[in-house]
Amino acid sequence: MERRRLVILGSTGSVGRQTLDVVRAFPDALEVVGLCAGNNIELLKQQIDEFKPGYISSASETIDHNGARQMPAEEIVSLPEVDIVMAATVGCAGMSPVMAAIDAGKTIALANKEVIVMAGEVLMRRAAETGAKILPVDSEPSALWQCIEGEKSPPERFIITASGGAFRGRKWESLHDVSPAEALKHPTWTMGAKITIDSATLMNKAFEVIETRWMFDIPYERIDVVIHRQSIIHSMAEFADGSVKAQLGPPDMRHPIQLALFYPDRRHNDELPRFDPVKTGSLTFEEMDSSLYPCFDLALDHAKLGGTWPAALAGADEAAVYLFLDGRIRFTDIPDVVASTLASHQPVMNHSIEDAVQAAAWATDYTLAKHATGASV
Amino acid sequence: MERRRLVILGSTGSVGRQTLDVVRAFPDALEVVGLCAGNNIELLKQQIDEFKPGYISSASETIDHNGARQMPAEEIVSLPEVDIVMAATVGCAGMSPVMAAIDAGKTIALANKEVIVMAGEVLMRRAAETGAKILPVDSEPSALWQCIEGEKSPPERFIITASGGAFRGRKWESLHDVSPAEALKHPTWTMGAKITIDSATLMNKAFEVIETRWMFDIPYERIDVVIHRQSIIHSMAEFADGSVKAQLGPPDMRHPIQLALFYPDRRHNDELPRFDPVKTGSLTFEEMDSSLYPCFDLALDHAKLGGTWPAALAGADEAAVYLFLDGRIRFTDIPDVVASTLASHQPVMNHSIEDAVQAAAWATDYTLAKHATGASV
Repeated sequence: MERRRLVILGSTGSVGRQTLDVVRAFPDALEVVGLCAGNNIELLKQQIDEFKPGYISSASETIDHNGARQMPAEEIVSLPEVDIVMAATVGCAGMSPVMAAIDAGKTIALANKEVIVMAGEVLMRRAAETGAKILPVDSEPSALWQCIEGEKSPPERFIITASGGAFRGRKWESLHDVSPAEALKHPTWTMGAKITIDSATLMNKAFEVIETRWMFDIPYERIDVVIHRQSIIHSMAEFADGSVKAQLGPPDMRHPIQLALFYPDRRHNDELPRFDPVKTGSLTFEEMDSSLYPCFDLALDHAKLGGTWPAALAGADEAAVYLFLDGRIRFTDIPDVVASTLASHQPVMNHSIEDAVQAAAWATDYTLAKHATGASV
Repeated sequence: MERRRLVILGSTGSVGRQTLDVVRAFPDALEVVGLCAGNNIELLKQQIDEFKPGYISSASETIDHNGARQMPAEEIVSLPEVDIVMAATVGCAGMSPVMAAIDAGKTIALANKEVIVMAGEVLMRRAAETGAKILPVDSEPSALWQCIEGEKSPPERFIITASGGAFRGRKWESLHDVSPAEALKHPTWTMGAKITIDSATLMNKAFEVIETRWMFDIPYERIDVVIHRQSIIHSMAEFADGSVKAQLGPPDMRHPIQLALFYPDRRHNDELPRFDPVKTGSLTFEEMDSSLYPCFDLALDHAKLGGTWPAALAGADEAAVYLFLDGRIRFTDIPDVVASTLASHQPVMNHSIEDAVQAAAWATDYTLAKHATGASV
């Protein structure tokens, strides 16, 4: 087989680095054509030295290129020699290169869930037009994708599992004084800061429901969420006859990353941990009490309104997480801050991608401006 | 879609009756062409009155045919109007009509696992020659089949789950005085007597390993067994990249029966129970301590010898279970009785189906003859 030629958007982030771990394990099968990163120039330089991409994109003009051409990420993903784009950027800023890859009809491994939250319907329609393939990298949608693989009948219900995040089992009211450091301690997954905070509020779980709704074209009422503390069952699909399939594995993002890079093949990788049922001992399920997680219902209630509502939601959440990590609002302020921004949103229905990008940017700016002086919500 | 025309071998047994439950739920999709049963003439008569098959086979010459023609099961399964044969007979006697269906190139839903235990390699080779399709009905192989559906890469490992049977957690030595009634109380599944006793000894689990080995052409060393008390996860497949898929559902044989009848379609059936993760609460796994279950290693050690060994194993076990249910040997005698017969077996290697049938019949007769006078092992 020829090597698959890969561009990584967000190569210095958590998923970007783990993608390069997979590339290291398969030097004969994967080739890095382009690396795109933001401000972590030191790490990007190391990655350039190691993987020798032909093209790079970064926030720095002065980076040592080591023979690589610097050009905008949108142009790199559209190059004819690119087979697959790993979209591992965090937040709403990832939309532009993802849309460029979709317009170029590429295969996109999508870890950057905010872009499908912002404009899932429009994005999937555009991908259908251009022939671009969107493959899930997020572990829950990846599990659902694996569960429905080869099935002739559509799933009747998806059951997305949720670890419950850093504060599972605690009452929301008790979280008034938690610090960013506490909220950044995820019980099962090692991930970037934004998604770890989103996991603690369960905003991330709402985003996965929205992602699932559009990626698999399944109505919201057929998507359930259940608390599963071990993060071993990554999600489940129920079929018309009541048969349920689950996808399992130790919580390690390299599993879904590798599957997306090699799909439909699966390759042996000794570096990946394996599921041992006896060592695991037991897998538990609990009802998700959404009163414990006010972000969850807030997010889905607005996502279901359609139009630019989910984009505004994603933009407001991005700002609220930033404000919390920056010490300017409390953890328990996050849903109120998001709700307050959404209350001022002027939605566009029958929206374009551009409308979604503008709505997200407006929501982020509006939220940040409101808290520029450190004013309380 | 045209109705699928069905013959049921063993229509009055547990799987046969549950197959007719599925037919009742889909009168427009399934048509009973033939019913074959043994001595339960009363129930067979009721089934003939209700389902009006064109053909029947029974142990009685005098049964009221109600318009149905009586003919040998081997001829019924071979009729051109038959689409699918549910092989739900119990024990080694099921081989002859199953082989007739294979020779006729039919689709066979195989619940009668003894026939694939007896001669799995030869049987699957013959099916490949005639174009017959063998679909699993046993819940564990059905789960594995569902887990590998649509996968391009072969599974690297199968994990078969075992409830542990009626006496799980008890030491083998403590089972000296258990009665047939106690052994017939399966903790999770409602099944016929033979398979319930085989489940208590874990002979049944060894049979499933043998069935899996041949049905999916996977080496024995890639098949593991794990104790899973809830019988909710019916089995799991691990792929090269470490991803694991599991098939789940409440323990109800109508699930795998319905899937085999409609494959590759899945149909909604309100009568089938659904998996509720929260009500289930937890799924547990424990190592199978094969010292607790002497039949398990005995069976696999002999099955791996090939030739007519597994057929003799199946025949000896059938007799031993009969002797236990008839009060002539103790529960804990079962492995010794089987081992004693196997010690006298003269195997045929490079065997035919006929060799396997003869070996099984020899083993059954030899075992019964040895205990005809009630002599102890």
